Formats: sequence, C-alpha cells, structure tokens
Amino acid sequence: MNGNSKAPSKSRVEMTQLLLPSDTNPLGTAFGGRIMQWVDIAAAVAARRHCGRTAVTVSMDSLTFSRPVMTGDVVVLQAMVNRAWRSSMEVGVRVEGEREGEGRFYAATAYLTFVALGDDGRPMNVPLIDPQTDDERRRYDKAAGRRAVRLAARADRR
Amino acid sequence: MNGNSKAPSKSRVEMTQLLLPSDTNPLGTAFGGRIMQWVDIAAAVAARRHCGRTAVTVSMDSLTFSRPVMTGDVVVLQAMVNRAWRSSMEVGVRVEGEREGEGRFYAATAYLTFVALGDDGRPMNVPLIDPQTDDERRRYDKAAGRRAVRLAARADRR
Amino acid sequence: MNGNSKAPSKSRVEMTQLLLPSDTNPLGTAFGGRIMQWVDIAAAVAARRHCGRTAVTVSMDSLTFSRPVMTGDVVVLQAMVNRAWRSSMEVGVRVEGEREGEGRFYAATAYLTFVALGDDGRPMNVPLIDPQTDDERRRYDKAAGRRAVRLAARADRR
Amino acid sequence: MNGNSKAPSKSRVEMTQLLLPSDTNPLGTAFGGRIMQWVDIAAAVAARRHCGRTAVTVSMDSLTFSRPVMTGDVVVLQAMVNRAWRSSMEVGVRVEGEREGEGRFYAATAYLTFVALGDDGRPMNVPLIDPQTDDERRRYDKAAGRRAVRLAARADRR
Amino acid sequence: MNGNSKAPSKSRVEMTQLLLPSDTNPLGTAFGGRIMQWVDIAAAVAARRHCGRTAVTVSMDSLTFSRPVMTGDVVVLQAMVNRAWRSSMEVGVRVEGEREGEGRFYAATAYLTFVALGDDGRPMNVPLIDPQTDDERRRYDKAAGRRAVRLAARADRR
Amino acid sequence: MNGNSKAPSKSRVEMTQLLLPSDTNPLGTAFGGRIMQWVDIAAAVAARRHCGRTAVTVSMDSLTFSRPVMTGDVVVLQAMVNRAWRSSMEVGVRVEGEREGEGRFYAATAYLTFVALGDDGRPMNVPLIDPQTDDERRRYDKAAGRRAVRLAARADRR
Repeated sequence: MNGNSKAPSKSRVEMTQLLLPSDTNPLGTAFGGRIMQWVDIAAAVAARRHCGRTAVTVSMDSLTFSRPVMTGDVVVLQAMVNRAWRSSMEVGVRVEGEREGEGRFYAATAYLTFVALGDDGRPMNVPLIDPQTDDERRRYDKAAGRRAVRLAARADRR
Repeated sequence: MNGNSKAPSKSRVEMTQLLLPSDTNPLGTAFGGRIMQWVDIAAAVAARRHCGRTAVTVSMDSLTFSRPVMTGDVVVLQAMVNRAWRSSMEVGVRVEGEREGEGRFYAATAYLTFVALGDDGRPMNVPLIDPQTDDERRRYDKAAGRRAVRLAARADRR
Repeated sequence: MNGNSKAPSKSRVEMTQLLLPSDTNPLGTAFGGRIMQWVDIAAAVAARRHCGRTAVTVSMDSLTFSRPVMTGDVVVLQAMVNRAWRSSMEVGVRVEGEREGEGRFYAATAYLTFVALGDDGRPMNVPLIDPQTDDERRRYDKAAGRRAVRLAARADRR
Repeated sequence: MNGNSKAPSKSRVEMTQLLLPSDTNPLGTAFGGRIMQWVDIAAAVAARRHCGRTAVTVSMDSLTFSRPVMTGDVVVLQAMVNRAWRSSMEVGVRVEGEREGEGRFYAATAYLTFVALGDDGRPMNVPLIDPQTDDERRRYDKAAGRRAVRLAARADRR
Repeated sequence: MNGNSKAPSKSRVEMTQLLLPSDTNPLGTAFGGRIMQWVDIAAAVAARRHCGRTAVTVSMDSLTFSRPVMTGDVVVLQAMVNRAWRSSMEVGVRVEGEREGEGRFYAATAYLTFVALGDDGRPMNVPLIDPQTDDERRRYDKAAGRRAVRLAARADRR
Repeated sequence: MNGNSKAPSKSRVEMTQLLLPSDTNPLGTAFGGRIMQWVDIAAAVAARRHCGRTAVTVSMDSLTFSRPVMTGDVVVLQAMVNRAWRSSMEVGVRVEGEREGEGRFYAATAYLTFVALGDDGRPMNVPLIDPQTDDERRRYDKAAGRRAVRLAARADRR
C-alpha cells in the first residue's frame, strides 16, 4: 500500500434531488442537462473530498440514460473517485431514480475527470487511490482503459 | 439523394449565453454542469428542427474542456444534426468562449444522441441526413465511428 | 412490534449540496432561506420514503444555526422520520458543513411535520415508526414532547 | 422612552410574490422551503431597516401552514421587527395568500432571530424597539416569552 | 362616478426584493432584465387585483434607469393600475433602491399594458378606473397621451 | 466612412432559448419579464461586441408582444447595434417564436440603450456605426428619431 493514498470510500458522496416541473420538458422527462449539472456537482464534491481542494471538471465521458427520470421522481446520485494519476482523478457517478409506487431503478452512469488546482491556479498532485473491495478494484482496473480511450481521443482531435 | 432527407444546416442552432457569477465555482471557472445544461438544450433544439418534434436525450458522448470559461465570458454554442438513423440523431455541439479584451476561443465539443418520440411516447422515424459540404460529409462519416463505439460500450455494460 | 410499522432507517435521506455565491449574502454567509429550502426537500423525500406517497409540509419547528455555512462550503443534510401519528410524521434533519481545509462541522438541526395526502387530497394514514437503535428510540421519545409543544402553540394561536 | 430606540413600523416590509409552477410540488402545493426562502429575505430586509446594516439569520421559530398556497396564488409577506436585545432582533412575518376568485387568506406566521454584524464580523449593538400601538405592544410582550423558549431549547441541546 | 369602476389604490402592489450577486453583472450593477422581470410580475399582480383575473403583458413602454441598483441593494417596486380601456389596463411601476448607509433613492419608472383574458382565452372587459386623489388624476390623464403614442407606434410598425 | 467606426453586423448576436414551464404563467403564456431578461442579455452581448467592454442598460424602449410565446416554444433573439453616439449605443432586438408543427413566427421587437463604462466606472467613447446594407441604413436613420423621443421623454420627466 502506498503511503500517500486513500480508499475510494473516503470520497463517497450521496446526493438526493427531487425532479421538479422546471427540470423537465413538456413530455415530463428530465432535461439531460439538468441531470448532468447534478452529476457534475456530486463528482466535484467527491474529487474535493479525495484531494482536500477545489477541483475543476476537465472532461465528462459518455453518459447514457438507460431509463428516463420524470417529474416527481426522486433522483439519487452516488459519486466516488475510482482512480487518480498525478493531478487528475476519475470520478464515477451512478444515477438512480425513485418513483412513487415503484421503488428505485437504475437510470445512468457517468465518468468525469477532474484536476486539482493549487493556489497558483496550476495542477497539483493528489493522493493515489488504494482500492479495498472487489468492486473498488474492478472500477480501478476499468478506469485505466477509459483513460486510454480519452487520451487517444484527445490525440485524434489535434 | 434520399427523398426523405434534410441538409444538416436546416437544424443549425446558435445559442449565446453570458456566464454569470452564479454559474461559476469560487475560482471563477464555469461549472461543467452548467455548460452541459446549455449544450443539452442547444442540441435538443437542433434535433427538434431536424425532425419537427420534441426529442429526448439518450446519451452524451465524452465532453472535454480544452480551455475553461470564466465569469463574465460570453459562451457561444453551435449545434447541428450530423447524422440520423431510423429514430435516433447524433447532434454535434461546438462551445466557444468570448473574453473581454481577448476575442473568441475554442472551449469544447460535445456529441449527443437524441430519439424522436411519437404521440404514443414510442420512438418514431426521423428524416435522414444529406450532407452538402465537405465539412458536413466529414462529420457524417465520423458519426458512424462514434456510433459503433457507443453500441459497443452499451453491449459491454450489460 | 406493530404489524404496520417501519424502522426509521428505511426513510433515511442524505443530500449533498455545494453552496454557491448565488446562495449567500454579501458577507459570504448562506441565506437561511436557501438552507431551509434544502431542509424542506430532504425532509419531504424522507416522508415519502416512509409512507410511499407525496406528503406536504405542515409545520417547521425552530431552526437554529449554531455555525453559519459560507460560500464554497459543502452542505450535507441527513433526514429521517422520527415518529408518526395517524397521517402526520415528524422528520428530523441534521445540517452539517464541510469547509476546505477544515473538515466537517455541525451547523443546524430542524424538525418538520408532514402529512400524507390520498388521491382525494385528504390526509390518509401512514405506517407507524418502530425504533431499532438507542438513538432512534431517544428521537422517538423526544418527538412526543415536541408534538405537545406544537399542539399547545396551535391552540394558543386560535 | 429610550433615546436610542425606534418604532417597529420603521422596519416594516411588504413583499409580493407570484407562486409559479416551479415553486410547487406535483400536487400544485407550494414547497414549504420556497415560502421559507421568501420569509427569510423579507425578515432580513426588516432587520436591516431597523439596524441599518446587513444582519444574519440565527434562528427560525416554528412555522405552521394553516392553509397551503397553490400554483397561481399571489403570496404577500409582511415583516416587522417586534423586539430587540443588544445585538439580536426578533422579526415577525405574516404570510397571506391571494387566490383568483377568492380574495386574501391567512397562510402562516413565522418568527426569526437576526444578529447584526459589524465590519469585523462580530455582533454589534442595535437600536431597541419602542412599540407605539396596542398591536405592537402585544407583539413586543409576546416576544419575551418566545425568547425564553428559544434560550431554554438551546440550553437543552447542549 | 361610473358604476363599474374602481379606485387605483385597490390595485396597489408593493414588492420588496434583495439584489443578489447572481442578479448583477461583473461590475456589480443589476442586470436590466432582472429588474424588468420583477417589474413585470409586480405589474401583473396589480392588473389581476384590478380585474380579478390573470392578465397577460401586451407591451412595456420605455424604462429608463436614472440610477443603477447594485449588489446588496434592496429594491422596492410599487405598482398601480393608472387607467383602463375595455379589456386593457395601463400599470405604472416605480422602482426604488435602498442602499446600506444611504437610504432610499429613485431608480426607474415603467409603464406596462396588460389585457385580461376570459376562460376562452379571448380579451374580456375590465372595470374602469375612478381616480380619487390629485396624483391619481394626473396619472390617469397622462395615461391617455402614452396610449396615443403606443397606438401610433403600432400603426407605424405595420 | 469614419476611421473609428464598425459595421452593425460585427455586433450581431443570435440567442436561442427553450421556453420551460417555469417561464410561463398558469395560462402557458411566457412571462413578459422572462423574455425581457433574455432581450437584455442578448442586447448586452451585442453592445459588448461593438465596443469591446462591459456596457450597462440605460433604458429600454417600448416592447410590444404581437403574438405570445408559449410553454415548449423555442425563442430566437437576434440583436444588433443600430447606431452609436459618443458613449451610448442603441441595440435592436428581434424576438421570434418557433412552435412544434407550425414553424417560425414574429413575436416582438425591442430597442435598448447601453452605455460603455471605463475602468473608472465613467462613460467612455465607443466606435460609431457605419451601416453597410439598406436594412442597416434604415435602422440607422430610424434610431435618430427614437433617440429624440427618448431625450424628450427624459426632459419631460424632470
């Protein structure tokens, strides 16, 4: 175990929101952008719990809604840092809905990358991640593949 | 040219926003989620211009901020449908910033998938895309590759 | 143990929010009303988890801020149904702050009363509370005293 | 009459709001937290009119909704400082609704405590209250009892 | 005096708002549009108090800011129906600021026209205005001139 | 052509918004104030593009809604500086609606005056306008008449 590393659970965030009519389109379905806003804040808090500082969103991987959330649904977001590299962290966010008379259902998963900034506004090193459970180890391993895809996509864009 | 197809430019959307203090973190940098919310609305309008109906966000591909937007910046979002398949459409959104005393700069690109819904709430067919310019053809071709990645990722998630 | 009763933990809600500049007064201190809005939503979700239906706020007991939360603080709200009587439920909400470079601190406690409404818009019965732990039993017992104060105050107002 | 004291009417605030769909739950009833947010701002302005400075919310006494306000209702809030002690002030807020085709109705009363802060961020003395009318004297007298309850509750919490 | 007419004071509205950082541009000056939004709601409530129904904004006359309102200022809006013609009403709104350590100052005046709509969504007749005081009579008389300008401008636009 | 002057098209702004339920009254019609808020931001960006600095709203001429925009409509605002005098600029904003199954329609036109402020907070000179097309010349000429009306109205108010 690395001396300067932390368990993923130290960064765990649970955020509960109620989906109001102002968050939905005329069909009663949540605006994707509203969910993304919550995803981003939940992830930012997780990143900050991991590194102890304000961190900024660098990228957001693909977000797929497997089931839409509707007006009146409760939305539960769970965020955790999966892995860290020097100054960047991958945060995973699981989004679930809770519908009156139906219970909880899976809605979406998102992966975001954050970078910690020092007082001079430049990237600074963050603690590494030391996974403790099988689930945490699986997320830690998969994070490497997602990072490779991100770096390849960035190179491709140039 | 397909009888039931439209040029990408028919769906073109330009959205201008001013980044207010309430849209930024304590460092003065835009919340990623706020930008994502605008990206989602600009894309939803483009999808609706293409198919003539309300469409819902199914997925959002990776979004990378190459340069942060700050309090006081103008944010210009340009959205257009790149390609369509049966009931789904890929919309590309280019995000630029405009800073006092500096001019315009590139900030981010996002790709979203929307599905058109009929009155019964089920997916319905949309017009295909008929690219007219070299740029439009390049985006049309690249959209196929992005779709393959999305379908592979979805299969992988099961 | 009552056949139609539930443990308080079944209604537990955790809500995480980030205090933005738009939520604070010129001194950088959170508007009490912003915190109250989050308190009310967290409590409403707890009440709904307990009774399985939308419930409306009937009253809010005294809320005292023992330490102000400031711009940039993370605010964590934990809500749970303490006790239920026919159609009404008392929900307790604990508010904590989390400041960069300082860790978590206690900010406030609030008690709210909710009533469950049936499809006809009239109060309907809810499950009773069956406390499981010492903490839950203590809250259950104290809820009776707070209810007596509320009923006395209401009688006094007439 | 105290040399450094003011009449309650000098701090009087009237706030009118229109209850929009985004302020209500799916039943069309106002979110308690939205009303509380308005109550807090109306009270903060009254406190500031009394002491001439920004004051922060220290506590909010019980708030009971005797009749819910609904989408489309006008909400009228009237706030006034009832009594002051050294650096703290009790503000009373009366909330009324106004429904199309029905006229005005009583909805709720709230009592809040504010503390004035000096430039150094520490509590500073405020003018005392000099009640002029019978109503003002009644509120002034009742404020003493409410304060005793608050202090007792605070002692109890330790 | 007309049998079906009302005094202007019956429609009087006072709205108090606190100007938050999210309502101002980077210079700390209120966004004109934010003030206009409050002006519109205050006027809509005055129109509704006059005619007893929801009324929609038809036009807004020129609005000139004689002094800007800034972050932290209290904004007081006073609205009243000046005159009515068949289904339309002119509402005047006076906007004042209140700055810490300075007191109240005049900020702007606005005149808006509203039309009352019946259940069928078509314009319906409203009570006439019966001015009682010299001020009310002056506003009533000046409203005729402003209406002539509006009608001329509308004819000019065709 | 003046050495220090710019074409109106250099300041052109297009803003697209989607009218959400939270922006409309119970009849489903847009709050005039919400549209005015967008009008003001679109115009502020046009003024800033013309003069390269933050500019503040000084006045808003009459705004007439020739057709209401409703929940679910797309709102397209097009803004451009029509003419400039020393430190002030007239910005014209055209508002159009786009309704599902109907296409685009004209909704309103607004004229606003902005003043550029220097670092010392005082008005500073801006480039003049050099109209290029017949439409731009027509707007340039009409701006002089509107300015005369504004100055006369201001003198009248004193």
